[in-house]
Amino acid sequence: MPFRAAIRSRPTRFPSSSARGELEIIRQIRIRTEHTTGSALSLGIGDDCALLRSRPGDEFAVTTDLSIAGRHFRLDWHSPESIGHRTLARGLSDLAAMGARPVAAFLSLGLPRELTVASGRRPPWVQRFLQGLLALAAAHKTPLAGGDLAESPVALVDIVLVGRVPRGKALLRSGARPGHQLYVTGTLGGAAAGLARLAEWAAAHPDPRPLQIPLRLDALLAPHLYPQPRIAQGIWLQRRAVASAAIDLSDGLSTDLAHLCQESAVAAEIYAALLPIHPASTLAQALNGGEDYELLFTAPASTRVPRSVGGVRITRIGCILPRRPGRPAVTLVTPQGREPLSPQGWQHFS
Amino acid sequence: MPFRAAIRSRPTRFPSSSARGELEIIRQIRIRTEHTTGSALSLGIGDDCALLRSRPGDEFAVTTDLSIAGRHFRLDWHSPESIGHRTLARGLSDLAAMGARPVAAFLSLGLPRELTVASGRRPPWVQRFLQGLLALAAAHKTPLAGGDLAESPVALVDIVLVGRVPRGKALLRSGARPGHQLYVTGTLGGAAAGLARLAEWAAAHPDPRPLQIPLRLDALLAPHLYPQPRIAQGIWLQRRAVASAAIDLSDGLSTDLAHLCQESAVAAEIYAALLPIHPASTLAQALNGGEDYELLFTAPASTRVPRSVGGVRITRIGCILPRRPGRPAVTLVTPQGREPLSPQGWQHFS
Repeated sequence: MPFRAAIRSRPTRFPSSSARGELEIIRQIRIRTEHTTGSALSLGIGDDCALLRSRPGDEFAVTTDLSIAGRHFRLDWHSPESIGHRTLARGLSDLAAMGARPVAAFLSLGLPRELTVASGRRPPWVQRFLQGLLALAAAHKTPLAGGDLAESPVALVDIVLVGRVPRGKALLRSGARPGHQLYVTGTLGGAAAGLARLAEWAAAHPDPRPLQIPLRLDALLAPHLYPQPRIAQGIWLQRRAVASAAIDLSDGLSTDLAHLCQESAVAAEIYAALLPIHPASTLAQALNGGEDYELLFTAPASTRVPRSVGGVRITRIGCILPRRPGRPAVTLVTPQGREPLSPQGWQHFS
Repeated sequence: MPFRAAIRSRPTRFPSSSARGELEIIRQIRIRTEHTTGSALSLGIGDDCALLRSRPGDEFAVTTDLSIAGRHFRLDWHSPESIGHRTLARGLSDLAAMGARPVAAFLSLGLPRELTVASGRRPPWVQRFLQGLLALAAAHKTPLAGGDLAESPVALVDIVLVGRVPRGKALLRSGARPGHQLYVTGTLGGAAAGLARLAEWAAAHPDPRPLQIPLRLDALLAPHLYPQPRIAQGIWLQRRAVASAAIDLSDGLSTDLAHLCQESAVAAEIYAALLPIHPASTLAQALNGGEDYELLFTAPASTRVPRSVGGVRITRIGCILPRRPGRPAVTLVTPQGREPLSPQGWQHFS
């Protein structure tokens, strides 16, 4: 059992009736990961640790993200494939924000037993979860290098992403300076708008079965169910030394921009009229909705920033100001005037 | 909030009444980790990712271990300090098995709200948990470089350890060859004996309050409550190129030796009379009890293996044989004769 060592054996005491499911999990991870092993991964699943080789001049970026059923996802709202995708997307987006290239992922899974066994003709939940996760992993050439499995009363997933970035070149939150311009990739508010639509649909269809989403809603829900981490854009910004600071929009623009200002000891103003609001989104969703997983970055005013990178639009939305007593960290400029924008973050399923 | 970025803000929606507890968690992690930051950690808590620098000629070892209340620990049996210690010990032991030196740890914590608030004069559970974890981290000069916090209906901890080891020198499970001798560090069965004593004590004191362990039991329970990962011994074996293969004893000798034989495509025999059985342990506990976190390793017969390394005894317990059809993977030799030893692993609280 060369696999059970890393996807460790001891805590994996799913009752014997689900042993088939467990072997199936392992078989599937193995099949799907063998061909994606990258050059940085010198030893994958099968020993006490995975081994990763840094290339000369590179350093490793490491991030970990915990998702818990009922809090970060809902088993009755989200398909297993979407939960798998979103799990990995959260971690990849953190790498993108540093301009790092993915090297390996590690997955810790705690699952109630029923999610590991097939129900009727449907494959087990965990198999569909892995399909969603591994499809995104393959798209970003990210091998799953290890992890842990345990039975748990509540479904939970902890994802660890390791990336590589040239030494000293990582995009940090702390590099923004007064006069720098503020940019975002893609559009804002699409994920929040999708979540709101999903919640409406769920309220109108109170059915104990997992939610069946009609096809016509797919496009509207995609930004929420299948967000695209901006790996290529992050690497581009890092390689060209375009960005002076960066963060990913996981908590919402108002919150993440406040983080960036805090780390850079600056203030910022953004112009409502410039915001690339998703067609389905309100201004409030664009400002405060989370999980768009776009990149928010700054660049000196003298730096030429293209209109798009890798097919994703780049939009200037504001600028960085000195931090002054009495000045709010973030100011929103609208046709009606200037108002402080306080971090309003992201509310789970509220 | 330079800290909340890595110990991330979004999922950390502990209700406002526990905000003080959350800030206290962060304050405590920060105070306790600032002075332990190692040279390999070039950016710690405060950005989307931590950054780790590999030294020329080194590679990184990465391991992840998930622990869930009721499965890997019991809130009514184990003190918060012990749970914190055991969490980190599991991860460190995986590094030890590879001969790797710890570089950084990442902690994902899912906690019910009540574990984050003080009860009466006692500090919050999470604070005592961190004390246990960070004390062991400090002993092994392992900075806590990031992590994630979330409210959860069940207490759970996922620990990620990153270590460094000279390229190509990591101790693997796959290097054992027929004729090599088999060794263990320390003693066997102490953790299982301690757990059995703890279970007896709990059964005799059915009290809803967290278990009060009398001092006289401390020494008996220590191998279970405060196992010592064999980092120094692992590094010694790796540096001197003494070990041909290694694994840590987390699942129990019968199971972990079977893993090592499987990975090395060999068989093994062990001699009951040679086993360094813990004074409180039975033979069965020494063979099948888990969580001793000793190292099991092999070395060529021509290699001189010292009697102790860093104050920890090294004992030869058997030897490696060719794998043959009909031969069990592991054979136990007793005065009564030879018998197959099948993996009996470790039963949670059974």
